[in-house]
Amino acid sequence: MDLRHWLERAVSAIEEWEAGHGPFERHPSLAVKDVEPAFDALVARLHDNYPFFHPRYAGQMLKPPHPAAVVGYLTAMLINPNNHALDGGPATAAMERETVALLAAMFGFGTHLGHLTSSGTIANLEALFVARELHPGLGIAYGAEAHYTHARMCRVLGVEGHAVPADDRGRMDLGALEDLLRTGRIGTVVLTTGTTGLGAIDPVHEALPLARRYGARVHVDAAYGGFFALLAGTDLDAAPWRAIAGCDSVVVDPHKHGLQPYGCGAVLFRDPAVGRFYVHDSPYTYFTSDELHLGEISLECSRAGASAAAFWFTLRLLPLTREGLGEVLAAGRRAAVRWASLLSGSQVLELYQPPELDIVTYFPKAATLGRIDRLSARMLDDGMAEGLHLSTFTVGRQAMAARHPAIALDTTHGRVMRSVLMKPESELVVDSLHAAVESLAGQRPTA
Amino acid sequence: MDLRHWLERAVSAIEEWEAGHGPFERHPSLAVKDVEPAFDALVARLHDNYPFFHPRYAGQMLKPPHPAAVVGYLTAMLINPNNHALDGGPATAAMERETVALLAAMFGFGTHLGHLTSSGTIANLEALFVARELHPGLGIAYGAEAHYTHARMCRVLGVEGHAVPADDRGRMDLGALEDLLRTGRIGTVVLTTGTTGLGAIDPVHEALPLARRYGARVHVDAAYGGFFALLAGTDLDAAPWRAIAGCDSVVVDPHKHGLQPYGCGAVLFRDPAVGRFYVHDSPYTYFTSDELHLGEISLECSRAGASAAAFWFTLRLLPLTREGLGEVLAAGRRAAVRWASLLSGSQVLELYQPPELDIVTYFPKAATLGRIDRLSARMLDDGMAEGLHLSTFTVGRQAMAARHPAIALDTTHGRVMRSVLMKPESELVVDSLHAAVESLAGQRPTA
Repeated sequence: MDLRHWLERAVSAIEEWEAGHGPFERHPSLAVKDVEPAFDALVARLHDNYPFFHPRYAGQMLKPPHPAAVVGYLTAMLINPNNHALDGGPATAAMERETVALLAAMFGFGTHLGHLTSSGTIANLEALFVARELHPGLGIAYGAEAHYTHARMCRVLGVEGHAVPADDRGRMDLGALEDLLRTGRIGTVVLTTGTTGLGAIDPVHEALPLARRYGARVHVDAAYGGFFALLAGTDLDAAPWRAIAGCDSVVVDPHKHGLQPYGCGAVLFRDPAVGRFYVHDSPYTYFTSDELHLGEISLECSRAGASAAAFWFTLRLLPLTREGLGEVLAAGRRAAVRWASLLSGSQVLELYQPPELDIVTYFPKAATLGRIDRLSARMLDDGMAEGLHLSTFTVGRQAMAARHPAIALDTTHGRVMRSVLMKPESELVVDSLHAAVESLAGQRPTA
Repeated sequence: MDLRHWLERAVSAIEEWEAGHGPFERHPSLAVKDVEPAFDALVARLHDNYPFFHPRYAGQMLKPPHPAAVVGYLTAMLINPNNHALDGGPATAAMERETVALLAAMFGFGTHLGHLTSSGTIANLEALFVARELHPGLGIAYGAEAHYTHARMCRVLGVEGHAVPADDRGRMDLGALEDLLRTGRIGTVVLTTGTTGLGAIDPVHEALPLARRYGARVHVDAAYGGFFALLAGTDLDAAPWRAIAGCDSVVVDPHKHGLQPYGCGAVLFRDPAVGRFYVHDSPYTYFTSDELHLGEISLECSRAGASAAAFWFTLRLLPLTREGLGEVLAAGRRAAVRWASLLSGSQVLELYQPPELDIVTYFPKAATLGRIDRLSARMLDDGMAEGLHLSTFTVGRQAMAARHPAIALDTTHGRVMRSVLMKPESELVVDSLHAAVESLAGQRPTA
């Protein structure tokens, strides 16, 4: 997809639409001069970024949007619709409803109420806000490896948050969850399908019936992992993903695995009646999925219609199917599986735990956690100097002991290496990536 | 500024930067086909928008971004930095700090802690969250004409919200505020400098010392009006704007009057020490303006660095001065003043109240509120059919009586006309706009 061609088409298309509304004089106050030096400064400044686009960037959760998303965003941005109200953006409001319905179908939700948000954090805030309204006075349980936003949003909402210990794969420990549910203090359980640290998948199919036995609501934070539902039953165990259909709400970030630029999260509720908690002038109005007015079912007010247009256009070209967007995720998943197998055979590197999605964690072999920490830090720095971009992930001594009991625990925490293989290009370079990381690890001075 | 030229330059600049990181093979899963019909569908769908760009659109608070903002946004979007963390976007994080410092200077804040947000609502949520932490158990007072987000965010935060009655210009009634402060139940007063309905300016210079006498914190919601601070002392009475410098926090939306696309709000605190309320793993860490790490002083997590780049680039070309961006706002203000004077001489239209900023409210002359409501609704529809886009604003019977005591109050509420003249082009067409609206009003059947 030739970005230049389609950006030019976008500008022309909007200019043509504008011309249909009659000529007018531009105001002199908007004229600018000396654009060249300002633009040069902008570009020079932007050079101070890591090459998120390149497969040699195997670090954090970052990549550029698909050209389709860029073109969709740009086209709508030239009009600047506001998805807060129908008269602020009729077209993009309709696109938002359509894309949210596609997400709902991906999760197996039939009836639903949902909308795009500017981020996963706001999407989670909304889900927890509704959870609090439905279970006032009760707490919210989330995994110890869940995103820290849940603890923070509990504080914002004035709700007691409870971190449930993780098992030896970073998933929620269901025995510990049941102990907590037995106290009668939990109104909502937050499950994570794809933690941002390890990509661990909470066992939704087991946690959901457990939570229901204690009358608890279940919210799924699929901000990172949500689109992997497209691989359920083929590349991934279907059970946790299929169980999402029975949960009460789910969050997913199109700006992570949906190929979108930042500014695009989503929250979906299975029961459209929760729309009543959003209403501000009447607590009794009832919403159904047929009567969505996006500003009335969102805590956010002004919101970029461009996000909806970008996502809608992208899904026209890469639909939410195993063969469409699913193949992009499958490539990253294959890269992670392949890398894990290479790491398992390495003399100098050790796999931290088998990847469940496309995040691989590993560390330079050493006898103590303290030394692993120092070596990891050095690998990060040395890699960066060579144009090989990795990231580190801090693990606690208990987490290390659960996975690698032979390592001496001389510190409370230590860094290991973490690579998010969310670009499908990772699949094409994973062998050379592994060789480069082995070489980095091998360069260390002897212990 | 030739948008096509600069978009092309943007794509080239990022491609050159990318090429510096070495070649790599694209993954086939990202290839798309049949772009043409999908693009045509996108454009056809986007035609279903009102012409926000055109001066004949004199309705809601909507306009496209400046080409500089489009180019800045597009350039950074191609990299997709995440301003949550420094390693997600070092360049745009620095740009964000610089633009926030410019906003702080505009409001007369010296030391400050602040960041861009995805919207004014989130910015206000953060200000009220900090307010609640500082005054636990106490309520928050806001004007009856303040944005409804304050009432809603009080509910989200579990804080008691109190609406203070408005005076006969839609400003907060300070007598009523003092009555409320005397109860000892108010920890924070929210003042609005530019209500979204009428553009009314709360008397910050009078409300601030009053609030301080009762030990209350003062937050200013300048989401809509904030950039009018550039006109303080020239086109506008300086007193309320200068008083913002003594308040505790302020919110302003660059996506309203800052020429940005949606997705760009801002919150600023005068005391950098409030950063401690954002910290999630340690409640004791202290922040100063020298040590900003944007993800640690924001409730939002992933956030588009592109917003910061767009705003930074725009301010290079249209700086925050009376002669720079100020002139864009001054044009809208002059348009409003001119239109108000034309309306005052009209036989068929009546000015609802004199505009304080660039929002003009008026209604077709009639004897009763009910008839004004019906005529206004008809003018809205008829105008739209002629390509003249207005909007309506619902006023209560008391509000009408306070301004126009001769009108018979046969209904509890009624719609009047409202035009937001936020495009400087309004200045160039205001006489013909008035003539067109007079003609619309004159077409009515006799009462």
